[in-house]
Amino acid sequence: MNAPQHFTIAQRDVPDALIQALKAQFAERCSTAMVVREQHGRDESAFTSVPPPAAVVFAESTADVAAVVKACAEHRVPVIPFGVGSSLEGHLLAVQGGVSIDLTRMNRVLSINAEDLTVTVQPGVTRKQLNEEIKSTGLFFPIDPGADATIGGMSATRASGTNAVRYGTMRENVLALEVVTASGEVIRTGTRAKKSSAGYDLTRLFVGSEGTLGVITEVTLKLYPVPEAMSAAVCSFPGIAEAVQAVIQTIQLGVPIARVELIDANTVRMVNQYAKLGLREEAMLLMEFHGSPAGVKEQAETVQEIAREHQGQDFAWASTPEERTKLWTARHNAYFAAVQSRPGCRAISTDTCVPISRLADCLLDSVKEADDSGLTYFLVGHVGDGNFHFGYLIDPNDPKEWATAEGLNQKLVQRALRLGGTCTGEHGVGLHKMDFLVDEAGEGAVAMMRTIKHALDPHNIMNPGKVFRW
Amino acid sequence: MNAPQHFTIAQRDVPDALIQALKAQFAERCSTAMVVREQHGRDESAFTSVPPPAAVVFAESTADVAAVVKACAEHRVPVIPFGVGSSLEGHLLAVQGGVSIDLTRMNRVLSINAEDLTVTVQPGVTRKQLNEEIKSTGLFFPIDPGADATIGGMSATRASGTNAVRYGTMRENVLALEVVTASGEVIRTGTRAKKSSAGYDLTRLFVGSEGTLGVITEVTLKLYPVPEAMSAAVCSFPGIAEAVQAVIQTIQLGVPIARVELIDANTVRMVNQYAKLGLREEAMLLMEFHGSPAGVKEQAETVQEIAREHQGQDFAWASTPEERTKLWTARHNAYFAAVQSRPGCRAISTDTCVPISRLADCLLDSVKEADDSGLTYFLVGHVGDGNFHFGYLIDPNDPKEWATAEGLNQKLVQRALRLGGTCTGEHGVGLHKMDFLVDEAGEGAVAMMRTIKHALDPHNIMNPGKVFRW
Repeated sequence: MNAPQHFTIAQRDVPDALIQALKAQFAERCSTAMVVREQHGRDESAFTSVPPPAAVVFAESTADVAAVVKACAEHRVPVIPFGVGSSLEGHLLAVQGGVSIDLTRMNRVLSINAEDLTVTVQPGVTRKQLNEEIKSTGLFFPIDPGADATIGGMSATRASGTNAVRYGTMRENVLALEVVTASGEVIRTGTRAKKSSAGYDLTRLFVGSEGTLGVITEVTLKLYPVPEAMSAAVCSFPGIAEAVQAVIQTIQLGVPIARVELIDANTVRMVNQYAKLGLREEAMLLMEFHGSPAGVKEQAETVQEIAREHQGQDFAWASTPEERTKLWTARHNAYFAAVQSRPGCRAISTDTCVPISRLADCLLDSVKEADDSGLTYFLVGHVGDGNFHFGYLIDPNDPKEWATAEGLNQKLVQRALRLGGTCTGEHGVGLHKMDFLVDEAGEGAVAMMRTIKHALDPHNIMNPGKVFRW
Repeated sequence: MNAPQHFTIAQRDVPDALIQALKAQFAERCSTAMVVREQHGRDESAFTSVPPPAAVVFAESTADVAAVVKACAEHRVPVIPFGVGSSLEGHLLAVQGGVSIDLTRMNRVLSINAEDLTVTVQPGVTRKQLNEEIKSTGLFFPIDPGADATIGGMSATRASGTNAVRYGTMRENVLALEVVTASGEVIRTGTRAKKSSAGYDLTRLFVGSEGTLGVITEVTLKLYPVPEAMSAAVCSFPGIAEAVQAVIQTIQLGVPIARVELIDANTVRMVNQYAKLGLREEAMLLMEFHGSPAGVKEQAETVQEIAREHQGQDFAWASTPEERTKLWTARHNAYFAAVQSRPGCRAISTDTCVPISRLADCLLDSVKEADDSGLTYFLVGHVGDGNFHFGYLIDPNDPKEWATAEGLNQKLVQRALRLGGTCTGEHGVGLHKMDFLVDEAGEGAVAMMRTIKHALDPHNIMNPGKVFRW
């Protein structure tokens, strides 16, 4: 039997004729070198699959992508779009073999429409690159998963991050797409208009489809004016319960807080060690306020009052941009800090999201289970959205630790579903949550997804083996 | 030849056996009385179709809806979901015959989760009823098309209204649905979690599908805390150009204005007459600011300064709730005021939406064309979103006026598409914009919509003849 982390579904034949044709067309941009294939056969998840994809094509244009998909469609060979490989759910593994399309060379910002607060980019542009390139416009793109992911990958997984509580997720921030379909045709979904009732919402169908319906080759995004004033603060609480109650009250009052992240005491310790910070090692909320100077002051005062009611310490402010960046870098590095705290470990990341009123229930019961299990773990949460992540740090070679982590995750997901929540707030289903998706959405809804997939990708070549079973 | 407003595609056979079966099951809740059928065979559009649906079933539960759909599916008879009939695009016309399902008796608010800012309702609940029923919670639902439409209808057309500039459209505010599919199965899409990456976004696929994929039988919506402070103002400008420039600058600065509506001088005149108001008869912006008292003051000061730069008058404030309601009622009644200004007329309503930077160009050229045409018209706009409506008031028996209005609409849509916009911001495609949808989305994207429709409704029974050709 395979280890629980190992996924290899029946490998499909990749004919030599296809590889030869791709090499003829793309020359050195089509690689079959084992090191390149292996790089493209894994991601940040703990999952593995062998063999890696049979070839990797480095696409430089939509026409390149269309050509690869057409060639693969002809031979009914799987196609796996690849950005920077930061998926936590095994999206990029060639579980049925096939060809990986590396999109990182399609990394141009195509047009900035500052006056409309929109930008159109190629899928290989990363979120940090985008913000760097639009700096001079006074605008920014807020969606920030932990990794410096590509906009294409973020669209495909319906990603979000710390700013979602105020600015929404990729669902709300993608205006339009260019997509190469399973037959290699190029279509556009949506326009630059802010709203539309023109036909089925193909944009939202592709956002979150995890590469299973087509390859995203252009993305038009909403941008936001950089707020006149921004300030960040940390606030420590005696325990997670008090921190979460403060967040719940903040959200229910409608305070337009831009970010509010929970880090548990244990994870603060890991972050302190990794980033040489001196944060108080208690459950902590990291917050950010955006607005006019007066608005930010007002929000901060309201939240500070709420925090005090829940035994929060006084806010420690990060007022300069440097201090603010340091704080948020620490938060974004929590994952890496945790993984480094146990050399050789892998993190099994959970991703449940529940209605905010259920957050304390869901979180506290799961913390108790995690503590009782004896596993090392970290805990961070986009708690303003009801979304949080446990990362169980396991020895990948220890089946018992795998089983313990899987058991905790099972219990957590079932609890979240009972409370009206979802098994994945932002990471996607990928390889590992297919059964959870059925538990959550029901057989009927998953059957409808499958019907759509069968209709749009009749030979199951687009990232097969992900999201649901064929 | 039919008049341009008349749509009747090949009528499909409605067997007596089906009608008898529905009568046996639903007794007096299945009506074949001509007056009831005729009521359900039209909407607020200028379009007509004969004969009306063969029968109308008044559903009282999801099980009722499922039973009707199953019976119709068996006989391959069209099913048309019907709310209050406020569509402006002919969505409710039985152009291929069939059975209308009246959903107005499914009008219960099923559960209010005030602490999560969500509510779940049956599809026949209207927007005003909803806000009445949740009044005591201190929350409100912001989406407000002109009519007091049902939440089911608003979901099906991806409706919006005056608050969308701040709160988004039905796309952003529907969290989850219950749907009866074309085979009569009941599925759920989405959860009450604020965000999710769990599989294809079926919720967004049904929002805006105009009844062509299934019948919406439950809707879970986001709610918002009633702002601590709200104030409304009107401001007059020497012309439309100046008013629009003021709006563009407001949006580009990121002022979180809650509503900003344009009414042209001519329409102000109609509204004054209809609602006995004394508004200055010039191009006018109607604005509303939501927030804390200090925040509202700050927003208003910023916008007032911008308005002055564009030759706007000083704001006239509506400070009491009664004054505010009066003002917004006037705005919502603009359509009816206009229609009443020319007895016997029908309004042909346009619905283009463009990126905000293109709004002045799009609007001014189209105003000139409308003025030159000699047709009476009204002009209102959700200009903060780049969306506006001309209503050409025509004598429905005068083919020349029809042709003139059609010609103006054609030119306007083509202009909006050239400027990166959409043919419909909020009314939907319905009967009349099928060709525009192809111009806008391209043959490939419409073919993809069609493929999805064929897969999910293989016998084309769900509101056939709408959105795109089968």
